Amino acid sequence: KQYRIAVIPGDGIGKEVMPEGLRVLEAAAKKHGVSLHFDHFDFSSWDYYEKHGQMMPDDWKEKIGKHDAIYFGAVGWPAKIPDHVSLWGSLIKFRREFDQYVNLRPVRLMPGVPSPLAGRKPGDIDFWVVRENTEGEYSSVGGRMFPDTDREFVTQQTVMTRVGVDRILKFAFELAQSRPKKHLTSATKSNGISITMPYWDERVEAMAKKYPGVKWDKYHIDILTANFVLHPDWFDVVVGSNLFGDILSDLGPACTGTIGIAPSGNINPEGNFPSVFEPVHGSAPDIAGQGIANPIGAIWSGAMMLEHLGEKVAGKSIVDAIERTLAERTLRTKDLGGNADTTACGKAVAEMVD
Amino acid sequence: KQYRIAVIPGDGIGKEVMPEGLRVLEAAAKKHGVSLHFDHFDFSSWDYYEKHGQMMPDDWKEKIGKHDAIYFGAVGWPAKIPDHVSLWGSLIKFRREFDQYVNLRPVRLMPGVPSPLAGRKPGDIDFWVVRENTEGEYSSVGGRMFPDTDREFVTQQTVMTRVGVDRILKFAFELAQSRPKKHLTSATKSNGISITMPYWDERVEAMAKKYPGVKWDKYHIDILTANFVLHPDWFDVVVGSNLFGDILSDLGPACTGTIGIAPSGNINPEGNFPSVFEPVHGSAPDIAGQGIANPIGAIWSGAMMLEHLGEKVAGKSIVDAIERTLAERTLRTKDLGGNADTTACGKAVAEMVD
Ligand SMILES: CC(C)[C@H](C(=O)O)[C@@H](O)C(=O)O
Ligand SMILES: CC(C)[C@H](C(=O)O)[C@@H](O)C(=O)O
Repeated sequence: KQYRIAVIPGDGIGKEVMPEGLRVLEAAAKKHGVSLHFDHFDFSSWDYYEKHGQMMPDDWKEKIGKHDAIYFGAVGWPAKIPDHVSLWGSLIKFRREFDQYVNLRPVRLMPGVPSPLAGRKPGDIDFWVVRENTEGEYSSVGGRMFPDTDREFVTQQTVMTRVGVDRILKFAFELAQSRPKKHLTSATKSNGISITMPYWDERVEAMAKKYPGVKWDKYHIDILTANFVLHPDWFDVVVGSNLFGDILSDLGPACTGTIGIAPSGNINPEGNFPSVFEPVHGSAPDIAGQGIANPIGAIWSGAMMLEHLGEKVAGKSIVDAIERTLAERTLRTKDLGGNADTTACGKAVAEMVD
Repeated sequence: KQYRIAVIPGDGIGKEVMPEGLRVLEAAAKKHGVSLHFDHFDFSSWDYYEKHGQMMPDDWKEKIGKHDAIYFGAVGWPAKIPDHVSLWGSLIKFRREFDQYVNLRPVRLMPGVPSPLAGRKPGDIDFWVVRENTEGEYSSVGGRMFPDTDREFVTQQTVMTRVGVDRILKFAFELAQSRPKKHLTSATKSNGISITMPYWDERVEAMAKKYPGVKWDKYHIDILTANFVLHPDWFDVVVGSNLFGDILSDLGPACTGTIGIAPSGNINPEGNFPSVFEPVHGSAPDIAGQGIANPIGAIWSGAMMLEHLGEKVAGKSIVDAIERTLAERTLRTKDLGGNADTTACGKAVAEMVD
């Protein structure tokens, strides 16, 4: 079967790292007899917005909704376009309208990437953050009253649905069950956020009954962030609401040295819609155009995409190639103390794939 | 003037650390000619709840509402009493009903306390977290619909009032202005939480105009937690909503080695009601009764209380004594690699006060 991939480089360094991601995907596809077809799109970018006054064409769903996956660079350029236009007009739209209810991010300490945590070595930190990606704290329900007076107030609702909570928990428990440690940690704050978070806890407890082989625990988000720093070796699969997952999936990669190499998947597990794979880093206007961006986040996201498509061997070959590349100082980009530029680093990974 | 302090040890190790806190307060008071009068209360504890079926007497406000400050140990014992009864029946009640709208916590790397962050030394990390303590995400507005069906959902509102947001920002800007670096960082998430957080940002911008001498910046909470780990030296005063402040004031102390020694103040700056000073740690049922709890959190909270009362010299003398005590391995408790018990550590600090 041939996989059809929609490629959207977006803004800034998105445009620089994507060619390297594609280079490595092509190398892995060739080695492992996987057939990939790429369609390139220029929307979901500042350039497109400048020309058309909107982030995406009206028929964006027809254009990319039938692809097997979407391979995404980065979007946003705060100095030119407000976040709520660029992000809510593309990335968050994909998540909602393609029902990508899982945001999946590995937290893994890689060779060659020094951890800011004292004494942690590759192998010590290796877990997944599973984030609910469509509801929770990122709702659009709320408003403002008595504007510009002393009585002014704003409200915004957090919304958790049975369907929404149960399906993300199911995904997280399944993932935990598939791993050697079979350990799930739930992020809560039911001692302070007294309505939605106790509900989350209740659903975790109910779901846990269906997975007797999975050991599970829960921590309030405040002490959980502390434990990411103090005991990152405690975790295997960590599941959280939209906001808590967002926080943990930036903090986790920070504990492993750099969010510059972290990948992510915005996944619709049922395959009713395409899933989006993108590096965690943004468009980085400050270093865009210099050819120095680290392409590992994009490349690793490509590996996650292959695994999602069922091509696990090809996907793993990329992750292995990343590890071998990072282990060599000269093949790393500047941000990791190396002297390779974006292209040299991408080429190195492509050559390492086997 | 004589200060009247209400002393509430609460549960678990709260009862063990408070005598040491009092010992040190008495030593500092004597040295610096400060007159303190202590009234002891047994409510806000599991013991009291067991006898009376409620956490506090009906007339708790009359009993402690006229004191100059409340010196608090720890409350909660999840195995015996649910958090929403113990915490919402005492700690969170104080915050709301005594309008303690500031939660103030130092993040400081102390001598003798190894940081989990590689290569950080005392002096490298020294900032304050200022947390809104009465509204925001900790609201009681919301509910559940269609229970036990597939359509079930829960909602909970985040509520930010003009009064509530402006007064915490004012406190934070004033604090920043009083410090050598004059730098304020605001925690936001306006790119995802699209109604309340842009309002927070708007109020920060308005307040900043009144403090032209303060440099300020803002970070989304996800990358801000990452920066606590990667660049803790960037911060001077960090202000956040109830939830964001809660997270940052556990993560911050974790980055400085232990939340076991962190102090906090729940402050009503106008002095209309007493403020509560308490260690960040909880009642720690697992180590209660062994005499090994670290009393530094309680002692340091006592120092914050003196400073709040205007006795800055006496307060500082305690913080200095803590630093000198922690620098000696033998005077530290077990959790910090020493061999002193709770009392020995408390006595050491009391003797160091000058
Ligand atoms: C115990 C809990 C309700 C409380 C909070 O979240 O406010 C605690 O974490 C704190 O920071 O004082
Ligand atoms: C850009 C922003 C809206 C987004 C989020 O909060 O979801 C980002 O932080 C992410 O994690 O993908």
